[in-house]
Amino acid sequence: MNGKFVTIEGCDGVGKSTQVRLLRERFEREGIRAVFTREPGGTVIAEKIRKIILEKETEEMDAMTELLLYEASRRQHTARVIEPALESGKLVICDRYVDSTLAYQGYGRGLDIETIKRLNAVARGHINIDLTLFLDVTSSEGFRRKGGRASGDRLESESGAFYERVYAGFSAIADDEKRVVRVDASGTKFETHEKLYACLDSRGYLNKR
Amino acid sequence: MNGKFVTIEGCDGVGKSTQVRLLRERFEREGIRAVFTREPGGTVIAEKIRKIILEKETEEMDAMTELLLYEASRRQHTARVIEPALESGKLVICDRYVDSTLAYQGYGRGLDIETIKRLNAVARGHINIDLTLFLDVTSSEGFRRKGGRASGDRLESESGAFYERVYAGFSAIADDEKRVVRVDASGTKFETHEKLYACLDSRGYLNKR
Repeated sequence: MNGKFVTIEGCDGVGKSTQVRLLRERFEREGIRAVFTREPGGTVIAEKIRKIILEKETEEMDAMTELLLYEASRRQHTARVIEPALESGKLVICDRYVDSTLAYQGYGRGLDIETIKRLNAVARGHINIDLTLFLDVTSSEGFRRKGGRASGDRLESESGAFYERVYAGFSAIADDEKRVVRVDASGTKFETHEKLYACLDSRGYLNKR
Repeated sequence: MNGKFVTIEGCDGVGKSTQVRLLRERFEREGIRAVFTREPGGTVIAEKIRKIILEKETEEMDAMTELLLYEASRRQHTARVIEPALESGKLVICDRYVDSTLAYQGYGRGLDIETIKRLNAVARGHINIDLTLFLDVTSSEGFRRKGGRASGDRLESESGAFYERVYAGFSAIADDEKRVVRVDASGTKFETHEKLYACLDSRGYLNKR
């Protein structure tokens, strides 16, 4: 693998989508080549799998069924989009990846951490994550930024206590994994953007055309 | 779990479907209560997952994506059908289960055996298989019985060498796992039926109403 694989992680409401957009716009202005992706990554099969997860069924979905489906979707996205990009030497920036599953399904919902780690490893396959940018804002701050919204999809309707657990999960992963860099995202979006850009630039990941 | 969980395994062409039918008919005649099932087990979600696996896509499905989908479907079938039946004390007879995945995807197609074992364990959850009836006919015999058909679905179009590997897989599982009983299925269907019935009866699994 000649490319670099960067994941961006963090709780809902920390401004992750905004940061991804700011990076993408700046890369375009500066002629920096990168593949931006997020699950299900635009693969037909991965999208079909996601559709099953999100559909409201008359039948209750077992929590482990859901996890296996997330990992199946991730495996297809990884095999079809991320691996080929890395093999051709590209910088790949992925909006959420394995850490989100560990934080949300494991720490948040209480599924077994070791099982999730093993399934994450199956979905990831032989690629390595070179760098994870963890947008670090305490969960209560993130929840406040979202205006404490309790509408929308299933995840967004979870309680504040759930987000505390998810934040604790991301924080534990950041402590455990050397690849993770905590980026203080409590300032303005432009301040956070400069920090993210500097992280990537200092590692030599930003090859200009 | 008060019930008993019995799986029936074997290569294609050994007469597994016929044996399941003969057991079902005899149980009905004799008033023996049992739940007969097979994946995807009639659950809506498990069937949707199977549909994704079987659909011919323009996009190639990664072998590990396929395995994760099989296990997701199995997890849902297990949680919705098998576990409730066992909890209510029923005898559950399942036409193929985890051993088929190990034999076909692992030994047959060459996916990593340990990974499949771990995923099988995730799908199985906390239930135990009490007895596995392995219909043992050498693979070449099974292939001959099918008339060497190379048409039909994807699995049936595999080569004789593939079936040799699958048979070796089932055979290895039978050697490793105490729960597995090899049933010589090279005789007539009625002879094989009597052996299966005797296996279940001698263990006290056949409670009459």
